[in-house]
Amino acid sequence: MKTNIRTWLAPILALTASVIISFSAAAQSDPLPSWNDGANKQAIIGFVEAVTKPDGPDFVAPGDRIATFDNDGTLWVEHPMYTQLAFALDRVKALAPQHPEWKTTQPFQAVLEGDMEALGKSGMKGLMEIIGVTHAVMSTAEFEKITSDWIATAKHPKFDKLYTALVYQPMLELMDYLRANGFKTFIVSGGGIEFMRPWTEKIYGIPPEQVVGSSIVVEYKVIDGVPALMRSPKIAFIDDKEGKPVGILTHIGKRPIAAFGNSDGDYQMLQYTTTGPGKRLGMFVHHDDAEREYAYDRKTHFGMLDKGLDDASKEGWHIISMKNDWKQIFPK
Amino acid sequence: MKTNIRTWLAPILALTASVIISFSAAAQSDPLPSWNDGANKQAIIGFVEAVTKPDGPDFVAPGDRIATFDNDGTLWVEHPMYTQLAFALDRVKALAPQHPEWKTTQPFQAVLEGDMEALGKSGMKGLMEIIGVTHAVMSTAEFEKITSDWIATAKHPKFDKLYTALVYQPMLELMDYLRANGFKTFIVSGGGIEFMRPWTEKIYGIPPEQVVGSSIVVEYKVIDGVPALMRSPKIAFIDDKEGKPVGILTHIGKRPIAAFGNSDGDYQMLQYTTTGPGKRLGMFVHHDDAEREYAYDRKTHFGMLDKGLDDASKEGWHIISMKNDWKQIFPK
Repeated sequence: MKTNIRTWLAPILALTASVIISFSAAAQSDPLPSWNDGANKQAIIGFVEAVTKPDGPDFVAPGDRIATFDNDGTLWVEHPMYTQLAFALDRVKALAPQHPEWKTTQPFQAVLEGDMEALGKSGMKGLMEIIGVTHAVMSTAEFEKITSDWIATAKHPKFDKLYTALVYQPMLELMDYLRANGFKTFIVSGGGIEFMRPWTEKIYGIPPEQVVGSSIVVEYKVIDGVPALMRSPKIAFIDDKEGKPVGILTHIGKRPIAAFGNSDGDYQMLQYTTTGPGKRLGMFVHHDDAEREYAYDRKTHFGMLDKGLDDASKEGWHIISMKNDWKQIFPK
Repeated sequence: MKTNIRTWLAPILALTASVIISFSAAAQSDPLPSWNDGANKQAIIGFVEAVTKPDGPDFVAPGDRIATFDNDGTLWVEHPMYTQLAFALDRVKALAPQHPEWKTTQPFQAVLEGDMEALGKSGMKGLMEIIGVTHAVMSTAEFEKITSDWIATAKHPKFDKLYTALVYQPMLELMDYLRANGFKTFIVSGGGIEFMRPWTEKIYGIPPEQVVGSSIVVEYKVIDGVPALMRSPKIAFIDDKEGKPVGILTHIGKRPIAAFGNSDGDYQMLQYTTTGPGKRLGMFVHHDDAEREYAYDRKTHFGMLDKGLDDASKEGWHIISMKNDWKQIFPK
């Protein structure tokens, strides 16, 4: 009987297979590879295991496994300014040639001259004027095209990367992990709902119908026989602070069992989520990593976390340290 | 060798299995058993086959297979009055002992005396007063309990059955068929969103986050340390006529490719849906079956279908005849 090469190879193949299998088992045993081991990672895993254990005391039916995520500062960068504000300022500059009067009219002059102090002084009235010309008096289809074109090309001033590349890798893993365990994930953001929808599915795996955000008034019009949804320069809903639980009711109709934010704008969402019956999880992302991202909390115009830091311990909310809890900030 | 009973049984078992398999294949070949063969059934099946055929010219990716359904008169009975109105009138009667003044105050007196003419005369102002006392000044949790208790016990005056038993079997099959083909189904109703959500998942297979409806203003309050969403007696959004495409944008963020209604309140939803690019399907349920349900269209207070009937042919919308297209109206 000849020694067959297959006979010789068999144990090697078996060994290879077992290495592959144990490697994949190891990967499965760490669903959050970008998170350092520690109390926060354990809190997430412990929560998910508790609510998914079929005969456990904390079991939650899959349909009720609702997790909500703030966007700016929780899923992607929000400094040096909210991305949507960067879009609005860029848009004013792009439209300026058609509006020579803006050179001497506030708040547009401030935008064109990069005078952030004068822009700040124009206040809410100035902001509404900017929203009026950059976000409204057009159809939702036109707005989708403008925002999609911008997000596909505009780059962040510090990192020189597309904004959609500046999403937090650990949070992407967290959303995947929750979905793999039967959760439905929703964005609940103060940002404009139609500003986010064109790209959230590709970047976060969250489809348009699971995006909750602020909105302006939209009206259905039939223009020359063609139906269009026209955007008006009038605020319909602000999905921030007390607005977040209301937005959750309107769009989801169920109380979340887990909520993730990073600022006092998310305080009520965490409060509404974690005061419900049964096991709950509330977490704030704390921007304390000046080197790899930014460091800010109580004193900032964008994403202030003050009362949330004071009350976290009392409310049982976890503070995620970007610096200590995250091995990696952005996808590689 | 003994003849084993298994040997003897084997061909019978095989035959039984093949009968079961071919029976199930037959069932699969008719996904709409309560629909009579005809142009409308063929239109539905032809549409679904076209948009799901991977290499076909009309293929639509699963994420974009959005189908919207009106509720009252499209999925369940809406005569002799909208079910939610029946709820409101019952609720006024239930609350009357606490309000002796209602015996002599309109519109409550009209409700208590069953005087529909006087109730009609009280107009929108009267209706808003009734909504105020029956739908508001309570938390969403309290409202959910009240509506759930009512829907579990109240019976329809003609059929003497629970309202949730008076849903249309052919439409249940249609929704199942669409979902089995990768569609996501949504309710887009003029009815109150929180009135529908407690039971749509069980009855229609549609979860709360896929229900779009009219709403009143809700505010987030923390009362004695307990968060609650409080319902105010103020209309926030009317999801009817021009409102339906707006509600679709707000909640879904995508243009449906199929829409089903039964009244002129659904006209704009069908128009918005069927004027989009690619293959589209728009259908009206026509109540023409006085014997098994009701017959009404151009002249009725509930579910008027007038302009829709006039324009259906021009717009390419299908008119479903309850009498001729449906073998069966309600589930057995």
